[in-house]
Amino acid sequence: MAVIDLNCDMGESFGAWRMGNDEAVLDHVTSANIACGFHGGDPRTMRRTVAMALARGVAVGAHPGLPDLQGFGRRNMSITPDEAYEMVVYQVGALAAFAQAQGGRLRFVKAHGALYNMAARDAALAGAIAAAVADYDRSLAFVGLAGSELIRAAEKRGLRALGEVFADRSYQDDGTLTPRSQPGAMIESVEDSVRQVLSMVLEGRVRAVSGREVPVQADTLCIHGDQPGALAFVQRIRQALAEAGVTVRAAAA
Amino acid sequence: MAVIDLNCDMGESFGAWRMGNDEAVLDHVTSANIACGFHGGDPRTMRRTVAMALARGVAVGAHPGLPDLQGFGRRNMSITPDEAYEMVVYQVGALAAFAQAQGGRLRFVKAHGALYNMAARDAALAGAIAAAVADYDRSLAFVGLAGSELIRAAEKRGLRALGEVFADRSYQDDGTLTPRSQPGAMIESVEDSVRQVLSMVLEGRVRAVSGREVPVQADTLCIHGDQPGALAFVQRIRQALAEAGVTVRAAAA
Amino acid sequence: MAVIDLNCDMGESFGAWRMGNDEAVLDHVTSANIACGFHGGDPRTMRRTVAMALARGVAVGAHPGLPDLQGFGRRNMSITPDEAYEMVVYQVGALAAFAQAQGGRLRFVKAHGALYNMAARDAALAGAIAAAVADYDRSLAFVGLAGSELIRAAEKRGLRALGEVFADRSYQDDGTLTPRSQPGAMIESVEDSVRQVLSMVLEGRVRAVSGREVPVQADTLCIHGDQPGALAFVQRIRQALAEAGVTVRAAAA
Amino acid sequence: MAVIDLNCDMGESFGAWRMGNDEAVLDHVTSANIACGFHGGDPRTMRRTVAMALARGVAVGAHPGLPDLQGFGRRNMSITPDEAYEMVVYQVGALAAFAQAQGGRLRFVKAHGALYNMAARDAALAGAIAAAVADYDRSLAFVGLAGSELIRAAEKRGLRALGEVFADRSYQDDGTLTPRSQPGAMIESVEDSVRQVLSMVLEGRVRAVSGREVPVQADTLCIHGDQPGALAFVQRIRQALAEAGVTVRAAAA
Repeated sequence: MAVIDLNCDMGESFGAWRMGNDEAVLDHVTSANIACGFHGGDPRTMRRTVAMALARGVAVGAHPGLPDLQGFGRRNMSITPDEAYEMVVYQVGALAAFAQAQGGRLRFVKAHGALYNMAARDAALAGAIAAAVADYDRSLAFVGLAGSELIRAAEKRGLRALGEVFADRSYQDDGTLTPRSQPGAMIESVEDSVRQVLSMVLEGRVRAVSGREVPVQADTLCIHGDQPGALAFVQRIRQALAEAGVTVRAAAA
Repeated sequence: MAVIDLNCDMGESFGAWRMGNDEAVLDHVTSANIACGFHGGDPRTMRRTVAMALARGVAVGAHPGLPDLQGFGRRNMSITPDEAYEMVVYQVGALAAFAQAQGGRLRFVKAHGALYNMAARDAALAGAIAAAVADYDRSLAFVGLAGSELIRAAEKRGLRALGEVFADRSYQDDGTLTPRSQPGAMIESVEDSVRQVLSMVLEGRVRAVSGREVPVQADTLCIHGDQPGALAFVQRIRQALAEAGVTVRAAAA
Repeated sequence: MAVIDLNCDMGESFGAWRMGNDEAVLDHVTSANIACGFHGGDPRTMRRTVAMALARGVAVGAHPGLPDLQGFGRRNMSITPDEAYEMVVYQVGALAAFAQAQGGRLRFVKAHGALYNMAARDAALAGAIAAAVADYDRSLAFVGLAGSELIRAAEKRGLRALGEVFADRSYQDDGTLTPRSQPGAMIESVEDSVRQVLSMVLEGRVRAVSGREVPVQADTLCIHGDQPGALAFVQRIRQALAEAGVTVRAAAA
Repeated sequence: MAVIDLNCDMGESFGAWRMGNDEAVLDHVTSANIACGFHGGDPRTMRRTVAMALARGVAVGAHPGLPDLQGFGRRNMSITPDEAYEMVVYQVGALAAFAQAQGGRLRFVKAHGALYNMAARDAALAGAIAAAVADYDRSLAFVGLAGSELIRAAEKRGLRALGEVFADRSYQDDGTLTPRSQPGAMIESVEDSVRQVLSMVLEGRVRAVSGREVPVQADTLCIHGDQPGALAFVQRIRQALAEAGVTVRAAAA
């Protein structure tokens, strides 16, 4: 039986600044990637977002990022693997504490933004992030770009690796995402997105921009919460998944 | 049999900036209050300080502070109890993660600087900090100024409360410290300090500036690591404690 | 001839987080208090906000705050007068640089949030802030709560002091604002607000909550930009001022 | 007549953390590159360092860095040219304010760490930094690695460009520094360093690692303040320069 997890970044408000539409999105996803204070999020926001996720039975994940509040963790930084290890242990522990204080449990870790993107291509960084998670708690699941160094690193350290796929990004022959700088990187049509998701979930394949069908490990689908049409899209995709007999549930629960 | 714990703040370096003499001090104390990144400390320093403490069998404690790096957590801030709760859960979880990732365990929590001083007098703040620790892990010990609101708050929440005493500060008739702004607040003589410590540890009493003997709960003695003469003082106090038959060991282990 | 300045806090976005409705508000006010990076604002936001203000002929002001991004500069901190002096020189210089780089000029300084409120009552803090501005550029105007220590401090240092008044806050017999913790602190009715503004601007008096008429120096009126009804209110007040023959223009230009 | 400027990074303490030996170094150099708060430095340190430099007649320079306190501005970050422009305007204005408040003047700008190194090779970044300085104050001098994009960018914008040279780094045939990752990058011998400096200052040439003599524009020599032997080296180099008849004075005064 086909299953898929729907994950969404959240808890990215900071102090007096609001971001996202967490409360509404939480009703539609099964996993919450919660910011841990380095790129967004603050102790209050983390506490509240964890509470909202636990109340809805949504799996709580840590979403650690680079120490770059002003750049929202989206700017590459030349950090060492040791620095990556340390910033992940710190942030994962901080978020896990809010889950534990509320009688819940942290379920998974997914790196944020530039940390995720750099590590997807860099085995040393990916290895350091996976080691941080494994050293902290070997029972946590580890979300990474399907087919990337993140997945390889997690498997090597005995973590349960969850391949993340995207509805609105096109793929290349080697199973990687088409860089945003290239034409055709974004899938604009909702129905094309839906078709791509169904193919990935039901057949474990995606049609690359070249037309070739390439294999992809689709454990969890990234949902964007804070864009116009985001809620409509997640409702549409859930309807299509239901019609195709796909079970939507948290991968790490 | 009389016992006392010797605790010292450490792990307060930040990035390229060094502070303290942690490696040397760790050989002489039994508990390490390790900064958690808000007033000092960073993920790398936390990891290393935890490793050094675990290697020496020194009890690992979290030392959460106000979010005031520039002021080193020493400036009072008008935070709400909820904000105190949240910043303590965050920082305690972050530090505990480094202990856990290294196969060790967090043993206790002691608030830092202005957070400690404000909460010692403010029952609502003290209650919030104690609740944060109790909600996170009821088995942790809680260090607070002997006789202060911190101790009352910890006991109320079922935490093991450890009264902290000072060798170089004089006491008032109500068991509180003489404010630094008043004459006689600091005990300058090493031998007077030693005498005060022995009286507190052996008899549970301290001679206040008025001359009255007042009761005090001496579970852990604060050692200052980063001052001229600090190492000589801790060696002198350990010698005096040994001669008096007092066992020096971690209170929370 | 009666004149009044309308000032509004702006440029308080930070990184990926948006705050306020600056572009719309700028069409209705005559002075912009632009955040300088400590409580809100970042270099990009400062550059853009200064550009928008200069393009509309709105007077550019620096709005320095406490170093408390997470608390948006609204939490009191026990800083020394020297610390206040230094954080004001730093922030004022940073904002002035953006004005100068665009061929414009900084016109005034108004402290933000807790820094403003603490200094309004504390002569030493107010003196330090005024000294920072005077030392940096004696030609700058200095906005402070009408009748407060801020005004006295600015006058003492030879700065042009501009008394700030509020449309939605009630006053006490001594000319200070009724604390928000007390009933009747906020004026809920738009027409009561308009009446209070006209009395302050035309007669230099305000009816205190006791019913007494007390004198007030009304040079600049604080407009809140980021609240429901804010734009409607500023349009209503401008209409009332026009009907009463009051000229609306920047006080520091 | 041959002249050379001796510049040194300083004002890099932060809050409770001390760094460097500024007071001693200031007696031996002619230009002070003062940190502006992003990679190091804080308002108090900036004020004091400016005061010490002005008191000794040492030229005051701004030393803006990346917003990376934890990494001391030494980690490359993928910032846009606009972001570079904005962070330079901000920091230069902040530092200039302390000079102006003390009756002095900012004389020059030199970027710090990773910002300097990235821009030395990247014309777009270098152009943005030079534009920030030129837009702010066209009379400022601009220090950059001799022969690098920084120098080209400054000249293009009409700034006075000052070529910086190094005593302890070897050069390549194209006039760039040998990367630290390569053997022979560092010149270990004091006398070799002295010889290299005299050749650069007196003849405008440096012997590259290949043995070739290559031209170099030596306006200012970088002095490291915070290393063992730093003070001894600067005294030795000043003696050698004096014996060779070279005048040591600030380039931007």
